[in-house]
Amino acid sequence: MSQHPSAESLLSSQMADCIQDCLTSHAVCLETAMSLLQKGTTSADPVRMLLDCSEVCATNAHFMMRNSPVYGSVCQACAQVCTHCAEVCDKIGEKDCANACRASARCCEQLAKLIP
Amino acid sequence: MSQHPSAESLLSSQMADCIQDCLTSHAVCLETAMSLLQKGTTSADPVRMLLDCSEVCATNAHFMMRNSPVYGSVCQACAQVCTHCAEVCDKIGEKDCANACRASARCCEQLAKLIP
Amino acid sequence: MSQHPSAESLLSSQMADCIQDCLTSHAVCLETAMSLLQKGTTSADPVRMLLDCSEVCATNAHFMMRNSPVYGSVCQACAQVCTHCAEVCDKIGEKDCANACRASARCCEQLAKLIP
Amino acid sequence: MSQHPSAESLLSSQMADCIQDCLTSHAVCLETAMSLLQKGTTSADPVRMLLDCSEVCATNAHFMMRNSPVYGSVCQACAQVCTHCAEVCDKIGEKDCANACRASARCCEQLAKLIP
Repeated sequence: MSQHPSAESLLSSQMADCIQDCLTSHAVCLETAMSLLQKGTTSADPVRMLLDCSEVCATNAHFMMRNSPVYGSVCQACAQVCTHCAEVCDKIGEKDCANACRASARCCEQLAKLIP
Repeated sequence: MSQHPSAESLLSSQMADCIQDCLTSHAVCLETAMSLLQKGTTSADPVRMLLDCSEVCATNAHFMMRNSPVYGSVCQACAQVCTHCAEVCDKIGEKDCANACRASARCCEQLAKLIP
Repeated sequence: MSQHPSAESLLSSQMADCIQDCLTSHAVCLETAMSLLQKGTTSADPVRMLLDCSEVCATNAHFMMRNSPVYGSVCQACAQVCTHCAEVCDKIGEKDCANACRASARCCEQLAKLIP
Repeated sequence: MSQHPSAESLLSSQMADCIQDCLTSHAVCLETAMSLLQKGTTSADPVRMLLDCSEVCATNAHFMMRNSPVYGSVCQACAQVCTHCAEVCDKIGEKDCANACRASARCCEQLAKLIP
């Protein structure tokens, strides 16, 4: 690492962190969905939202891993879905999942702003 | 089918068509990527774009299949990636793949407009 | 098609059919899982099995699309999961889904036998 | 952790480790595939194997996360694909990826043995 990181290396380091955040919320959302199902959830909505969020987080992580030139729009979609999912998690008391989703939403929003 | 379909059934029928279009371009993009690889492609860019497009088409189809309340942002991302991928396919002479991507881009744009 | 297809072209034609069968059960299983959830299912088990089956069918189809040299073990896993899922679908009266899973199980078993 | 873990908690702890190993090789394989592509690889085979391995590792991790009753066959398929992929990575000097794949192969083999 140089002492004065270039814009490019800053982006690359932020992206590496965001890949990790998205892979974490991908996993936490899937596990939370299954745990709700196992408990005998009465509503389909949170499970659906968690499956949605889990999948878009994985897809977004893969776009960044592939260094995709078109990751910006997927990053924005991921930020929106994660924000919604965090709200749903708050309502049903799934605090860890809400935090994971908010972390992903935040890093995706920040990355989306950096796209020229 | 009623003679005067409601807005809801119109959306639902358009969505069913779009799921099919996205699943088709998901498959065609993956097969085209592997065919380029097999031929010993000289550039990574078209393969990457085809893998990107294949994945976002699947994710978008899954959001629609799950009847997700947040599919709009994924649909827009899918439209953008498919449009780029169609252009890349045109340049390398992959006409069938270009057509599949354009069909998906079009249905996603139309669906995204219908979201209230 | 030649009148006396070679072993290779027979495999390739069976594989193309199996890719289609697996993509169909991938879609039908996901849609059936969401429909159960929407109805307010009382047990997690069928939804879990349907999500399992949907995912392994997609993975198996992708292995075949990539012309993978190691698709045999995934094909066997897919056959087993599809067979279980078909039984679960029978029990809960999801006849179309049971049929789709059985078609995939059958083509995967046949393909797995052809591997030298 | 109790001093005398039950068979069930041992399985559960081994499974949690294996989920992590599989998610790691899922990521490393995808990144290695893209890096080979970027360098202008001359052969399609390693890229294909890395994409195969990346996908089956994710699918296997998801089966374990869902606590699937049929994860055994997917676990065996994952072990086989990871073993092949590790050999391919050795040949092309991708040591980190080879190690990640071998770790996943090992944990999958161990888990598959524990299934009653």
